Amino acid sequence: MITKPTLLIDESKAKENIKKMFSIANKHNVDFRPHFKTHQSIEISKWFKALGVNKITVSSVSMAKYFAQEWKDITIAFPVNILEIDDINELAKEVNLNIIVESSESILFLSQRIEQKINVFIKIDSGYHRTGIAAENTKLIDQILDTIDSSKLLFFAGFLSHSGHTYHSNSIKDIIQIHNDSLLNNSYLKDYYSNKYPQLTYSIGDTPSCSIVDDFTGVNEIRPGNFVFYDLSQNKLGSCNISQIAVALACPIVAIHKNRSEIIIYGGGVHFSKEGMNSDEGVIFGRVVEQGSTINKPWGNIIPNMYVKSLSQEHGIVSVPKTEISNYKIGDILLILPIHSCMTANLMKSYKTLDGKEIAKHY
Amino acid sequence: MITKPTLLIDESKAKENIKKMFSIANKHNVDFRPHFKTHQSIEISKWFKALGVNKITVSSVSMAKYFAQEWKDITIAFPVNILEIDDINELAKEVNLNIIVESSESILFLSQRIEQKINVFIKIDSGYHRTGIAAENTKLIDQILDTIDSSKLLFFAGFLSHSGHTYHSNSIKDIIQIHNDSLLNNSYLKDYYSNKYPQLTYSIGDTPSCSIVDDFTGVNEIRPGNFVFYDLSQNKLGSCNISQIAVALACPIVAIHKNRSEIIIYGGGVHFSKEGMNSDEGVIFGRVVEQGSTINKPWGNIIPNMYVKSLSQEHGIVSVPKTEISNYKIGDILLILPIHSCMTANLMKSYKTLDGKEIAKHY
Repeated sequence: MITKPTLLIDESKAKENIKKMFSIANKHNVDFRPHFKTHQSIEISKWFKALGVNKITVSSVSMAKYFAQEWKDITIAFPVNILEIDDINELAKEVNLNIIVESSESILFLSQRIEQKINVFIKIDSGYHRTGIAAENTKLIDQILDTIDSSKLLFFAGFLSHSGHTYHSNSIKDIIQIHNDSLLNNSYLKDYYSNKYPQLTYSIGDTPSCSIVDDFTGVNEIRPGNFVFYDLSQNKLGSCNISQIAVALACPIVAIHKNRSEIIIYGGGVHFSKEGMNSDEGVIFGRVVEQGSTINKPWGNIIPNMYVKSLSQEHGIVSVPKTEISNYKIGDILLILPIHSCMTANLMKSYKTLDGKEIAKHY
Repeated sequence: MITKPTLLIDESKAKENIKKMFSIANKHNVDFRPHFKTHQSIEISKWFKALGVNKITVSSVSMAKYFAQEWKDITIAFPVNILEIDDINELAKEVNLNIIVESSESILFLSQRIEQKINVFIKIDSGYHRTGIAAENTKLIDQILDTIDSSKLLFFAGFLSHSGHTYHSNSIKDIIQIHNDSLLNNSYLKDYYSNKYPQLTYSIGDTPSCSIVDDFTGVNEIRPGNFVFYDLSQNKLGSCNISQIAVALACPIVAIHKNRSEIIIYGGGVHFSKEGMNSDEGVIFGRVVEQGSTINKPWGNIIPNMYVKSLSQEHGIVSVPKTEISNYKIGDILLILPIHSCMTANLMKSYKTLDGKEIAKHY
């Protein structure tokens, strides 16, 4: 029985999302290295393994240590944090570790302090302007490669980029454009470096591109993560249908204010995260879905005009159509699709499957 | 040694903040029932106890269970979640428990299911319009009181309000106005009910009001929480000086982009939370402070124009004045004041004091 905010997972939807993305990778003949920062769960990671996935992406050394219990080929897709060199050396004893570098300072540090064989990806900025080197900056890339090549423990794995700016797109056309720019970088770098490094991997990563585009020319590996659950942001971008969203936060109703046509739920920023999304109704923090009738179909479509309008630490205020408000009473549970499932899942200690099983996660 | 995002706490600042708020309560002859949702730590709670504080506020049944190890008088300042009745009955065996009711449905449920003596506050909406009953709605209040009075286990404790709309104020004048409106509610309710209930408590709560106002006429109890740490939002409201902010997130620098005058830190939405704040620079997610020179003064003033401009799951992008960027290198630590310390503290597993001691928290 649900008595407080609980993150429900529809196992069959999640497995379907995994299968679909895996088949996209297979169709385009690219390696599938899913990002596990979204679900952060060894148990869920086994759903990937069952399909034949054998390599993964994470976003921190801590997360790599957690997944090293189960996975032996791990990319930490984050500019290497040199302060964690001791943990990196420990990890590299256990797993085939791939790290990311984007500066001569970091690679120099690694060349002096690394004690195990490690693979290095050079981060390319595909236009997101968060991290990475511009593809044209071959001077800096060459400098990094020189340091890698002069080390007995560092091995050049290839180039890695993340077009995170697809998340700010307004249309599928924008997403395709961003993706195509990334492919151009790729072909530029391959032309420039593939003679010397014929085995180099070009790895790309965001869920919107991988869900939408149909051209992976020159790409060797994809690293999407969010697709395992999807969410309202991905739906807005066009990456998924509402029916593909595989997690919903179940929140008890603790108060009803008919005069304002609002429901107060136990479910706040410490459960959803404070990430909002622009919508026709202003910034919203989640949408309520219809309750399903069977255990195999726990929720249905979103209820029009019923959304989380604000969040405090533990409270949420849900705006409800006047015609609907009488259908609810204190003690009922609302099922709410999150804006950004990675952030919501990060905050919750575990998942609950539709048959009431608890799924543990990194926490 | 700090190697990854770490929430530093300046113990002496926090203790000073506690002492100051306690002396405000004493000066105005109101009970001090601090809200512990901000720090969520038994160890920090003992700093309050050392001053003579003996009653506390929390925001969930889970948090009440955690603090019941150490505290025997607890108010759960959240509309009672009737689905947690079993836990509430358990808790009420151990502690003097105060719960909040704002509807006849909830009080009726309680009157049927409560098995222990419990004190009930009626939640009054002081204008925030999140939860609570309008002070004028004496019909509903009377209905709730009738149910309380006809139960052998329910005891009317008084009225409780939270002027959370002070957080949306633009000036100290606004905060004082909101507070005065709350006092008016109070005097209205006291006039109306004090003959029948001469012992009733009127409890108010928000940190901005309690930090700023000087009139607590008719108030019996205050429940501020955030003041223990304060943060940039409170500073913007005028509740505190920058020098009173008692927590800072220490984040390693993992990349530097001089061309954009930006530093990339290991420190993202899973550490800070995604709560932003409007500022002259747009929406920001934290401000960098000067490094202190001694262990007793770990950080100084904010560095002008140096702020967290965006957050991903694990990355933060810090905008840096062009004249400053050469002072930093990869592997350095930035100390960053949070926008909303409650949300940041909630995400972190522990605190670290300036002498390197770890302080555990509810997690």
